[in-house]
Amino acid sequence: MNDRRDVPEHLRIKREPQRGVYDRGTIDAILDEALVCHLGFEVDGQPYVIPTLHARIGDRLYVHGSAASRMLRHAASEMRVCVTVTLLDGLVLARSVFNHSINYRSVVVLGMATNVEGDEKAEALKAFTDHVAPGRWDEARQPTEQELKATWILSLPLTEASAKVRTGPPEDDPEDLDFPVWSGVVPVHLAAEPSEYDWLRVRDGRIVAP
Amino acid sequence: MNDRRDVPEHLRIKREPQRGVYDRGTIDAILDEALVCHLGFEVDGQPYVIPTLHARIGDRLYVHGSAASRMLRHAASEMRVCVTVTLLDGLVLARSVFNHSINYRSVVVLGMATNVEGDEKAEALKAFTDHVAPGRWDEARQPTEQELKATWILSLPLTEASAKVRTGPPEDDPEDLDFPVWSGVVPVHLAAEPSEYDWLRVRDGRIVAP
Repeated sequence: MNDRRDVPEHLRIKREPQRGVYDRGTIDAILDEALVCHLGFEVDGQPYVIPTLHARIGDRLYVHGSAASRMLRHAASEMRVCVTVTLLDGLVLARSVFNHSINYRSVVVLGMATNVEGDEKAEALKAFTDHVAPGRWDEARQPTEQELKATWILSLPLTEASAKVRTGPPEDDPEDLDFPVWSGVVPVHLAAEPSEYDWLRVRDGRIVAP
Repeated sequence: MNDRRDVPEHLRIKREPQRGVYDRGTIDAILDEALVCHLGFEVDGQPYVIPTLHARIGDRLYVHGSAASRMLRHAASEMRVCVTVTLLDGLVLARSVFNHSINYRSVVVLGMATNVEGDEKAEALKAFTDHVAPGRWDEARQPTEQELKATWILSLPLTEASAKVRTGPPEDDPEDLDFPVWSGVVPVHLAAEPSEYDWLRVRDGRIVAP
């Protein structure tokens, strides 16, 4: 499941390689739980990173591109992108500053993004909607042709994807164990406040995968 | 405070321009509240986006570059980057799928990043530490020369920065107002769970700016 021999060089986690995870189950679970992603692309030598919505349908990742559309309207129909999602799980307070860390689960997807058109566009928009609020597509007023036209969606395959995960307590150096300071993890999570809407992604005030 | 006349073209918010905010007070508050950022850069035509830590000292933004260091060790001492932070504030459920949105506050900083060395490196590491856990630098064991050497930090000025902010209820089209579905905002926030550590960034279980 986590065999690194087949992982291409540019996808392999170089720093803290023990945190690299390459199985699709882990990658899919992180993509499905995260509410937003960060889309990276380059225009005229300047990298841009823009927060936006995403959703996975099987082996493809869809990204809402409208926030970047004006910047990219002169771009070719295909472009190299990087889509990154990050879930924060805890602040790792070690006895030394150097060993401080964050517990997190992140996924990086590299690839050639293409514009989505036709029936696939409506399917992707349904996936975005149900990704944020499961079942919402069926209960809200669905898009008109004009609204679909005004939406820009990118798609890329999940063939170049890797996850990086840190869990567990601080890794204090043996010589620091007597240093007189609290060491441990402060757990954090994305929480939903009460609302009138029965939101299916909330369990015990915590946002979970659908 | 929010005069757009002086904003350079590549920084101006093109889509939903009314959400663009360019005053340093707003930009600084978002940077200071966010626990992590996403660092975007390009290597051999492939954009990469990596989650990492950041901290602001006055007019400069510091970014922990170690997660990207092996990828970038052949890079020049300066490189164009984009650093983006995003705070999620709510899910905006409109009556139509098309008007669904997210309440958020984000900042995009563009610029030429340079390697940080010497005294500035220790100051930046202190800023990262106190950004995550205010006061932690003074109570934890401070870094040795060797540990400082093993840390890679980038810095860029806050001269090319813009914020984008969406607040408030859904913007339903007048013709949708009778559509029989709940419309409103589900507020979300990053929450800290109880821990033994008296974490200074928590008020009422919510993570706030220091």
